[in-house]
Amino acid sequence: MGSEQYGKRTLMDYCPDIKVVDCTMRDGGLVNNFAFTDEFVRDLYKANIKAGVDYMEFGYKASKEIFDPKEFGKWKFCDEDDIRAIVGENDSPLGISVMADVGRCDYKKDILPKKDSVIDMVRVATYIHQIPAAIQMVEDFKQKGYEVTVNIMAVSKVNSDDLDAGLELLGRSPADAIYLVDSFGFFYPEQITRLAQKYLAVAEASGKVVGMHAHNNQQLAFANTIEACRMGASLLDATVCGMGRGAGNCYMEALLSFLKNPKYDEVPIIRFVEKHMLKLKEEGVVWGYDIPYLLTGILNSHPSSAIKFMKEKRSDYCNFMQELLDLE
Amino acid sequence: MGSEQYGKRTLMDYCPDIKVVDCTMRDGGLVNNFAFTDEFVRDLYKANIKAGVDYMEFGYKASKEIFDPKEFGKWKFCDEDDIRAIVGENDSPLGISVMADVGRCDYKKDILPKKDSVIDMVRVATYIHQIPAAIQMVEDFKQKGYEVTVNIMAVSKVNSDDLDAGLELLGRSPADAIYLVDSFGFFYPEQITRLAQKYLAVAEASGKVVGMHAHNNQQLAFANTIEACRMGASLLDATVCGMGRGAGNCYMEALLSFLKNPKYDEVPIIRFVEKHMLKLKEEGVVWGYDIPYLLTGILNSHPSSAIKFMKEKRSDYCNFMQELLDLE
Repeated sequence: MGSEQYGKRTLMDYCPDIKVVDCTMRDGGLVNNFAFTDEFVRDLYKANIKAGVDYMEFGYKASKEIFDPKEFGKWKFCDEDDIRAIVGENDSPLGISVMADVGRCDYKKDILPKKDSVIDMVRVATYIHQIPAAIQMVEDFKQKGYEVTVNIMAVSKVNSDDLDAGLELLGRSPADAIYLVDSFGFFYPEQITRLAQKYLAVAEASGKVVGMHAHNNQQLAFANTIEACRMGASLLDATVCGMGRGAGNCYMEALLSFLKNPKYDEVPIIRFVEKHMLKLKEEGVVWGYDIPYLLTGILNSHPSSAIKFMKEKRSDYCNFMQELLDLE
Repeated sequence: MGSEQYGKRTLMDYCPDIKVVDCTMRDGGLVNNFAFTDEFVRDLYKANIKAGVDYMEFGYKASKEIFDPKEFGKWKFCDEDDIRAIVGENDSPLGISVMADVGRCDYKKDILPKKDSVIDMVRVATYIHQIPAAIQMVEDFKQKGYEVTVNIMAVSKVNSDDLDAGLELLGRSPADAIYLVDSFGFFYPEQITRLAQKYLAVAEASGKVVGMHAHNNQQLAFANTIEACRMGASLLDATVCGMGRGAGNCYMEALLSFLKNPKYDEVPIIRFVEKHMLKLKEEGVVWGYDIPYLLTGILNSHPSSAIKFMKEKRSDYCNFMQELLDLE
């Protein structure tokens, strides 16, 4: 995408370079410990293809040295055979993506050469201080033949100087995309405007694109995603029913309705909701906006304490707020 | 507010001219037929005072000729005595507001002279074609001594020429404020930007201010409210837990956290949620984002069909979408 696109994206037209990434199984897997049935995964795969979604992220490539496979569903590890059991050779326009966390992935061993894998894109999740390690992974994955993104997490906790330095390093890396990630659901849209401009300046100078991954702590995940899109971000993350850690993510059904590219169709996603997501909710899988997540969001705090609060079925929000302030 | 404020509102500072209007009982009353207990109302009144909220809307001034008082809670009518039973002489900085619908209010009789009433502000809700009738009401209320706003409903269905003409008429009226109302939760923030500019141009030319009332069909109520605020809107509507018709409104707890005026404090509101709102939800009072409301929002359609769909406990969203499209 050229910089002439800045501010020219209108609500009536569409940019063919915008791509949508379904993260339901990856971010949603953090809610149910990746315990999705094969039927769920197969139907989601088909729904994404019909809906025109561009990438489906199956989960993490987590180290089996660090995480015991007995304690997690298989999508925490995304073994090649498990993905192929769903997608075969993936004879479809839908790209397959996995996430690899810096320091939690035996990537030299577990990420195969692209010619031996049905995976198309590897997304490297990194904290700001891990960027040199992230770049080693990016180089490895590019060499193996993948599309590669780098997702800098928890950027609301990073000071501007460090962020500028980190972005500059990533600009020089062979990554295809740099992701703006609002891990804590902290940012307001006008902050996304400025951050997206910063990311885009670095990305475009080095022939990369920018992605957006939002969290819904303040019910701004969709608003922040379309704001990043308006500024020029090209890779937009969303999940069905917003399923994701804590307050969850940008709602896929809202995002597809917003995008005007005729290839997108929210109906297959809504049909998937009818069949699978309502059942998940009935089974007691809980995610989405609630006051504890609002509080961690506005206090720029990791959602883990709010998740614990919710699991304990507490409702003393004001005490919880004081506990959070004590941690500041 | 002067036009020099445009675009100068920052996230760190505050504008003392911004005022927050709690509509929990008015828009939320549409959810539970105004069946709030006196304890609820009294505690909300106290919470609003502690939280620094500027106005509390108690409900509608509906005609008892048109609506049978036996079929609604008392806040559909907001009799002077009922308000006074809660607030006494309202010896507090919190203003008392009521809403009067054009054509549904015996205003000559039911709106007393200000000197005989504890109400401070009357908000006239009008459709675009009723603006001349709305202006008659505005003139009556101003003459009686009230602050008066005009809220043009369903503006997403109004063409630009009619809106311009309607706004011009309102600019010449004695109303204190003109409200941008997204009745169907249809607008994206960048549309709010442009609409707010349009409303502000008319309002400022005639010494008025602009208000914002959002609905959460696309989970954009908070985002649209703070976007209107950024552009210069001064009266911001919100409800506790977003309680309001269908998908509900802007969440008060999120809005107060956003505003930096030290007089605002979300804690009393969150404490009110602990005591009252969780109970309402347990009792089965339902509002808030859900797919049927998303669908009426994106199709620019009145939420009534989605409310019916939800009441019937249907979950065949795709059929519902086709029913909506048939009505286009």
